Amino acid sequence: MSPEGWVWFVMLVSVASLLMAALFTRQVLAADSGTAAMKEIAAAIKEGAQAFLKRQYSTIFLLSLALGALLFFFYLSQKGMELAWKTTVSFAVGAICSGIAGFSGMFVSIRANLRAASAARTSLNRALQLALRGGAVTGLSVVAMSLLGVGGLFLLFGGLRKPELIPYQLVGFGFGASFVALFAQLGGGIYTKAADVGADLVGKVEAGIPEDDPRNPAVIADLVGDNVGDCAGRGADLFESTAAENIGAMILGVALFGKFGVLGIFFPLVARAFGLIASIVGVWVVRTKEEGEDPMIALNRGYLVTTLLAMGGFYIAVRFLLKNNLWFFAAGVIGIVTSFLFVWITQYYTEYRYRPVLSIAKASATGAATNIITGFAVALECTALPVLTISAAILSSYYCGKQAMPDVTGAGLYGTAMATMGMLSTAAYILAMDTFGPITDNAGGIIEMSGAPEDVRKRTDRLDSVGNTTKALTKGYAIGSAALAAFLLFSAYLDEVTTLVQQKTGDFSYHFTSVDIGKVPVFIAALIGAMLVFLFSAFAIKAVGRAAYLVIEEVRRQFRENPGIMAGTSKPDYGRCVDIVTVGALKAMVVPGLLAVGVPVAIGYIFKFFATPTDTTIGAESVAAVLMVGTISGILLATLMNNGGGAWDNAKKYIETGQLGGKRSEAHKAAVVGDTVGDPFKDTAGPSLHVLIKLLSTITLVMAPLFL
Amino acid sequence: MSPEGWVWFVMLVSVASLLMAALFTRQVLAADSGTAAMKEIAAAIKEGAQAFLKRQYSTIFLLSLALGALLFFFYLSQKGMELAWKTTVSFAVGAICSGIAGFSGMFVSIRANLRAASAARTSLNRALQLALRGGAVTGLSVVAMSLLGVGGLFLLFGGLRKPELIPYQLVGFGFGASFVALFAQLGGGIYTKAADVGADLVGKVEAGIPEDDPRNPAVIADLVGDNVGDCAGRGADLFESTAAENIGAMILGVALFGKFGVLGIFFPLVARAFGLIASIVGVWVVRTKEEGEDPMIALNRGYLVTTLLAMGGFYIAVRFLLKNNLWFFAAGVIGIVTSFLFVWITQYYTEYRYRPVLSIAKASATGAATNIITGFAVALECTALPVLTISAAILSSYYCGKQAMPDVTGAGLYGTAMATMGMLSTAAYILAMDTFGPITDNAGGIIEMSGAPEDVRKRTDRLDSVGNTTKALTKGYAIGSAALAAFLLFSAYLDEVTTLVQQKTGDFSYHFTSVDIGKVPVFIAALIGAMLVFLFSAFAIKAVGRAAYLVIEEVRRQFRENPGIMAGTSKPDYGRCVDIVTVGALKAMVVPGLLAVGVPVAIGYIFKFFATPTDTTIGAESVAAVLMVGTISGILLATLMNNGGGAWDNAKKYIETGQLGGKRSEAHKAAVVGDTVGDPFKDTAGPSLHVLIKLLSTITLVMAPLFL
Repeated sequence: MSPEGWVWFVMLVSVASLLMAALFTRQVLAADSGTAAMKEIAAAIKEGAQAFLKRQYSTIFLLSLALGALLFFFYLSQKGMELAWKTTVSFAVGAICSGIAGFSGMFVSIRANLRAASAARTSLNRALQLALRGGAVTGLSVVAMSLLGVGGLFLLFGGLRKPELIPYQLVGFGFGASFVALFAQLGGGIYTKAADVGADLVGKVEAGIPEDDPRNPAVIADLVGDNVGDCAGRGADLFESTAAENIGAMILGVALFGKFGVLGIFFPLVARAFGLIASIVGVWVVRTKEEGEDPMIALNRGYLVTTLLAMGGFYIAVRFLLKNNLWFFAAGVIGIVTSFLFVWITQYYTEYRYRPVLSIAKASATGAATNIITGFAVALECTALPVLTISAAILSSYYCGKQAMPDVTGAGLYGTAMATMGMLSTAAYILAMDTFGPITDNAGGIIEMSGAPEDVRKRTDRLDSVGNTTKALTKGYAIGSAALAAFLLFSAYLDEVTTLVQQKTGDFSYHFTSVDIGKVPVFIAALIGAMLVFLFSAFAIKAVGRAAYLVIEEVRRQFRENPGIMAGTSKPDYGRCVDIVTVGALKAMVVPGLLAVGVPVAIGYIFKFFATPTDTTIGAESVAAVLMVGTISGILLATLMNNGGGAWDNAKKYIETGQLGGKRSEAHKAAVVGDTVGDPFKDTAGPSLHVLIKLLSTITLVMAPLFL
Repeated sequence: MSPEGWVWFVMLVSVASLLMAALFTRQVLAADSGTAAMKEIAAAIKEGAQAFLKRQYSTIFLLSLALGALLFFFYLSQKGMELAWKTTVSFAVGAICSGIAGFSGMFVSIRANLRAASAARTSLNRALQLALRGGAVTGLSVVAMSLLGVGGLFLLFGGLRKPELIPYQLVGFGFGASFVALFAQLGGGIYTKAADVGADLVGKVEAGIPEDDPRNPAVIADLVGDNVGDCAGRGADLFESTAAENIGAMILGVALFGKFGVLGIFFPLVARAFGLIASIVGVWVVRTKEEGEDPMIALNRGYLVTTLLAMGGFYIAVRFLLKNNLWFFAAGVIGIVTSFLFVWITQYYTEYRYRPVLSIAKASATGAATNIITGFAVALECTALPVLTISAAILSSYYCGKQAMPDVTGAGLYGTAMATMGMLSTAAYILAMDTFGPITDNAGGIIEMSGAPEDVRKRTDRLDSVGNTTKALTKGYAIGSAALAAFLLFSAYLDEVTTLVQQKTGDFSYHFTSVDIGKVPVFIAALIGAMLVFLFSAFAIKAVGRAAYLVIEEVRRQFRENPGIMAGTSKPDYGRCVDIVTVGALKAMVVPGLLAVGVPVAIGYIFKFFATPTDTTIGAESVAAVLMVGTISGILLATLMNNGGGAWDNAKKYIETGQLGGKRSEAHKAAVVGDTVGDPFKDTAGPSLHVLIKLLSTITLVMAPLFL
């Protein structure tokens, strides 16, 4: 096929995927929507989620507008009109595509919850399929919008004429996507956990009522939170991964222009398009037997199908675009194997079949303090295997790249890019499984609150527990792909600085390759980069604590002032809790967001004054250290928070199965404390750190001219 | 004075300081030792502490013997007989000096506790002075033994003839000191917190009896722990800092040999000797009024005197040894100012006069979970200011060094070395204040257990609370000096590799200066270095959890099987708890210790196989990345743990003053959980990380030949 042919292939597959998402939407909407009581609850969730999203995206829109204007004038002053409008348009398109993907995913998931709940009254399989297809709308929109955006801009900017210039002009797209993702994930993450912590602490611990009990005034806010945090937030996160890593790989492709021409630049998009096809088929084939089978097995079957098809597609892409160089295919397989290993490690540290979670559960018998201490030790420990896995993956794919093109410098990095593409090829399916989580969580809540019979609850409980697993896996997957892609994005930055210096000095033999932390300013920048990750997490967690405190006070107030609520004779004021969390989360997301944007830019700008005649690029080099060591800290801290939180959660669930005294025992109370502590770890700070890591990459790329 | 004169000056001051320590010991031992009941309790503490220390140092001795033998044969095969015996002797002397300093400090502090308790029955001032002078024995022995060891080896190895060769031969001393310190701090830290957590959880929370209640079977183990963790552990920690940083600065002095001759190499020792004199005077002048004054003010007065005298001494040393170059004096002042700032920042984050601790206390009102969440957010946040302070200190002292000798390369680093020396010049006084902590803590315990009257308890409580503050400050000081010294030790490693490569290749123009994390293996090594810090902390904390669990089970068993204990009619079996913790702590310290030693060596050995003809030093460069990024992570994580733990502790203390419901309120229960969680953070993992950071420096220095 001609290069044009492949571009159109990517666009076509993306549009077809969006049509497929529309078809899934129709299927979901056409399904039965249950009793009046169920509809009422679902309507409250929908209303709360929409209200939050609207206010959240208004804030993000204003921030983006301001930043877009700054970006335009900065580029205008530095690089002239053409690059200024292109970068700004890229930024805007990235931000808008991210918003559209998030909105459309949410649109479906806050409707799919009710339909899945209704279906659960008669059929497990039907409920499973509705929830997964509802989730697939998010998965497909996210990946397809990303490909459409990047592909469309590529065409718009004249990529078919001068393909080797365009990828650099697309970095604005990645920056726009990560800027939106940062606030979407932070705001959503703060919302979901403030509501959850608030609802649990007063409800479960103080009042002794079960989760999702309609007497709890914060219960609707909690259900809204699942959507805005896990669904909209994670969607934006993976949208950005997809975008940033595609663009990073395309920039590497430019370096190989002499070897593969424009096909090497397209390759990432084509591989992802095959991944989309694979994911659609994967979602289609998922079905389960009525009662005998664990629904997780059905989802894993779909994942396996997706993976095999994606591998096949990857092979085709390598065959036709990369001259059938099988070392590249091998690197892609390494990426796919890495994603499997991450899934396995995440399960080991977060499921109660294994030692780590069991040790936390056991420690709960001696109280909350030992639960927390043991859980924190597990959280610290669980960073080791992912780091070793990712180290092995980077080294081996780097080796594949070198073997693929022994005569080309930088070939090793293209190998790690292939591994990243391999890992991301199943992203749409993974994201569908992830969004399956909040949908089934909500379905369970709707069933519980509407007082459905025991056997229906059992069915939604089974789906909900599967959803918990898939949510944890996605986080492992997201951090794994971020780590694997880190090198891709570093080298894009190094290339960008090289180009800038070459243009400035006219010395085209110059290459910016070294980031020497043996230099004092570079070391200090590295130290500050690592510290940024800690400080950012502090703000994120503090925001949850603060907003949760408001919720707790409000719930206590309602219980105190209206005893009819606990008696079940009068309805609590759900809306008040929803409002409190909405305002709290939006306020709290601004400072950490601006911190993440401001620190790397400030370091680059200030540290360039340490330049000496023999070392003119110290500013850019210091920023690279912020980026790299910030990424290292971010990977570690995010893994700690994600897996630690998951482990605490499941230690509690293990006790709830009747072990160690079961529900309401002292051990259970201790485990609830651990679970609550883990909530902001795993659903606010951890996922926000994924976004922070990638924002560091894109912002340094976009702002590079400032650092020289 | 001649160079020989200065060496003898250092030796003389060191011996005089040891005599002074002996005088303090006599003063302490001559004091009244209280009632029979008090003596009995103190005897139990003494016995437990000595038994633990004996078993602990036996284990350390065997480990050191094995490592010393390995070291000898490794050096013999690589570098020949002379360097082999010198390095091994250095290692052994370092290990032995550290042991002697630790033992003699402990010898006094487990006797000073009783005397201070007895004195508190009549005079606050007398108790304060006894506790501080008891602490000063540790402070003076540690610093003097370090100077004697380094100075003695310098003379033994013929330093007066070939001064520029010797500092490299002393790295074994630093390695021996840090190897002992690692196990002393780990074992002691695990002991103290397992006993404390165990005693508190069952005693305070479950049985509702106060701290140090004689009915608690774990109470003696808890009091023993204060000595072996805070006193012996921290002593070994600062012994090692003193040793490693002196040697690092002496190696830098070698680089300036052409400029200052042997005086530049001696300078660090001379500056420290003046610091010893200053500290002795500082300890002498401390006295307080009977009731009107906060004892902290008296201690601060002594600190101020010490600081001013040390500054004066530093000036004299610069005047006579460094050609009166006032830029160096300025760098030293920067170091002293940095230590003040660290003390201030630590106070801000750990005292309940300020926002952070108050926010934790307030969050306790909504339960243990919000206490933990808020506390963890504070712990993450409190890394920011120390990082900014240390960044400013490194940059500005670097600048001073450059100004001092504009024509010399590497002059900047000598500036940071001066700042480190300035910061460490008050180490003996700081360490005296630190050991004051466990002595007064023990004195309070003895008073409480022996049933002394209320007004005596009040007096010991006041001293105890001052001791809590001084312990927290020392940790801030230790991590600050470790961070400031980091660059010193990095550059010693870079120099060592340079020398090795020059000898190997015969190319004396070669300089190993770049640690480029833009290279794939180096980046991966950096990632693993950061991960090592997390994994090491996991092991340390897990060990506490595990040993505490055993204590809790034992205390519960005693309460259950012998109801007379709670009734006060029969005595609990203290010895059994002491045994359980001793065995648990010693077992648990081995694995993390070997991990810390093994990982950097393994990385260097494995990664050298990535060497290419154009990049032969990739192994050594990767180890440098482990060292640097491991240090960055270590600084952040240690600060998080130290200050987080301190903040939790004081949030509880704030509530105990009667705020938010006071003792036994729900808020207090929640705050006790937070305090308990913070215990292994601040007294096990945090301090062990200080040692890990410095062990990384010394082990890479010693093992450098293996990485090439």
